[in-house]
Amino acid sequence: MKLSWTPYDLQLNHTFTISGFSRKTTPVVLTKIEYDGLEGYGEASLPPYLGETQASVIEFLKKIDLSGFSDPTQLEEILEYVDGIAINNTAAKAAVDIALHDLAGKIIGAPWYKMYGLDKLDVPDTTFTIGIDPDDEVIREKTREALGRFNILKVKVGGADDKRMIEAIRSVTDLPLAVDANQGWKDRRHALEMIQWLKEKGIVMVEQPMPKYDLDNIAWLTEESPLPIFADESVQRLHDVERLKGVFSGINIKLMKCTGMREAYKMRTLARALGMKVMIGCMTETSCAISAASQLSSGLDFADLDGALLIGNDCFDGAKLENGKIIASDLPGIGVKLTQKINFGR
Amino acid sequence: MKLSWTPYDLQLNHTFTISGFSRKTTPVVLTKIEYDGLEGYGEASLPPYLGETQASVIEFLKKIDLSGFSDPTQLEEILEYVDGIAINNTAAKAAVDIALHDLAGKIIGAPWYKMYGLDKLDVPDTTFTIGIDPDDEVIREKTREALGRFNILKVKVGGADDKRMIEAIRSVTDLPLAVDANQGWKDRRHALEMIQWLKEKGIVMVEQPMPKYDLDNIAWLTEESPLPIFADESVQRLHDVERLKGVFSGINIKLMKCTGMREAYKMRTLARALGMKVMIGCMTETSCAISAASQLSSGLDFADLDGALLIGNDCFDGAKLENGKIIASDLPGIGVKLTQKINFGR
Repeated sequence: MKLSWTPYDLQLNHTFTISGFSRKTTPVVLTKIEYDGLEGYGEASLPPYLGETQASVIEFLKKIDLSGFSDPTQLEEILEYVDGIAINNTAAKAAVDIALHDLAGKIIGAPWYKMYGLDKLDVPDTTFTIGIDPDDEVIREKTREALGRFNILKVKVGGADDKRMIEAIRSVTDLPLAVDANQGWKDRRHALEMIQWLKEKGIVMVEQPMPKYDLDNIAWLTEESPLPIFADESVQRLHDVERLKGVFSGINIKLMKCTGMREAYKMRTLARALGMKVMIGCMTETSCAISAASQLSSGLDFADLDGALLIGNDCFDGAKLENGKIIASDLPGIGVKLTQKINFGR
Repeated sequence: MKLSWTPYDLQLNHTFTISGFSRKTTPVVLTKIEYDGLEGYGEASLPPYLGETQASVIEFLKKIDLSGFSDPTQLEEILEYVDGIAINNTAAKAAVDIALHDLAGKIIGAPWYKMYGLDKLDVPDTTFTIGIDPDDEVIREKTREALGRFNILKVKVGGADDKRMIEAIRSVTDLPLAVDANQGWKDRRHALEMIQWLKEKGIVMVEQPMPKYDLDNIAWLTEESPLPIFADESVQRLHDVERLKGVFSGINIKLMKCTGMREAYKMRTLARALGMKVMIGCMTETSCAISAASQLSSGLDFADLDGALLIGNDCFDGAKLENGKIIASDLPGIGVKLTQKINFGR
């Protein structure tokens, strides 16, 4: 197995604003693992607020020595080794996990959704995020652009503009809406009042309403809330899931947080076994990481896989938007093809 | 997909005695699912103390209508339907689950251990059970027969003969021993004294020391015990696992109890995520069900997969005993071939 990589900068179609930060690009690192004439592709997406950089990912990738492994399908053993190289570095680990899944799937000759026993068409509608804007007419215009392509929209809330945003969208459409508060509400009674108001406005779920460590207040809120409450910042990896039972209604699994597909599938299994809901989310990513996520989105409660639709220089063809759902391709592995020449120079 | 079946009676090499019952045969039902020129095989093993019979299995199989499903690889959906047909009937459900896994693996063209990302050689030594006998010389002779073939033996305890059995085996070998008390100890202090004595005699694990619902006393025993304590009768399906955390050190997963490979893999994932140990066990079964179990035995703490070695009329070739371990074949699906003509007459 030969691992190589290259940094790549995603060009965002619209300036992305969250919690006071704005940016026009998202840095990623693309990975490739070659074996016996086959190539598996992976990706680490590195939005700045998560603490990994192209340099830190490449630093991590340089430490990996796959020469001790002869069979790329032995994912459990190889990925346990990779996980043990350093703590954190979850996006870097995901870049290896995804490339290895792509390679193993190509060796076996099947897409992962099939090996997971799933129906690739039985996936939730993906949410599409309507970005915050001070001008209501801009919000209405963004919303109109999404109509017909998406069956559920997502709005970032948790600030002073919440009601105005929702009202502006509601003046254009009554599609179901998901909201992500990104830890924005600090008081549980205020959060509950907001959620009750949102429920009346046709909102169907709430992500991370309060600060990630404020679990006692979130547990109270989940108990009182008429809408399901999902953990995002409060959940990262498999070991986080159990203690969130009874705190949140469900968890948002993201490959870049949890080290990739293998751990994501375990988290999905664990959460469901504990009676929790499950959604799958993403960063701004190419169709490489989005296609990987699409392999395990079947049967989940919500999907937020619009990441590759937000960029202008996607270099992979893979999972596609069909009738409001992100559907995996029929190709083996994660189901992608490179659409341009990429130099994986290491 | 066409499902067919036939009853089959396993001839035991030795009379099998457990908790006062003796028998020379184990009834099973063999299943076959045909699709597009491929055949998947399954098995329900029906030791009398578990409550299912060949008649009840066939009754259940007759209720199954697979005509609504076009793709046998969509295991999640198909097996959810099968599970919903009736409560219990876990061995009957396993017979469908195993045949469907065999078929899906043949369609995909890979053995399941590969799709699980596992190394088929990285499995625990299988235990081999030395049957209870009033004559110490018979025990010594049975033990001698097992030497060289097995690296760990298993003894049924929980009765008045415990120490005599162990001493008889120890007079022949110092191989590691596992013990299964089959709920036999009723007093926790007596159980702890026995376990402390067993620890000194080189026993490495204890299965189901006390009655299955006596969880408070078992939790105390696990806390005090110098040996890991595994749930067998106390655990059946996925929903049982969570409440056993902190009660037992680990769980014994058996396909016939848990409805088959799909739920077994979820139980394995859940138990490990909860920090519990995992072993995989069996009934007396042909190499069909044993091969299915062998697909997911990699990386577990213990394996008790001697079921097909105890019968004289195994009609499948599949997973094999190699250096004390039951190792899956390289064939796709569960990795078996029929070794004789079986008429699946429905």
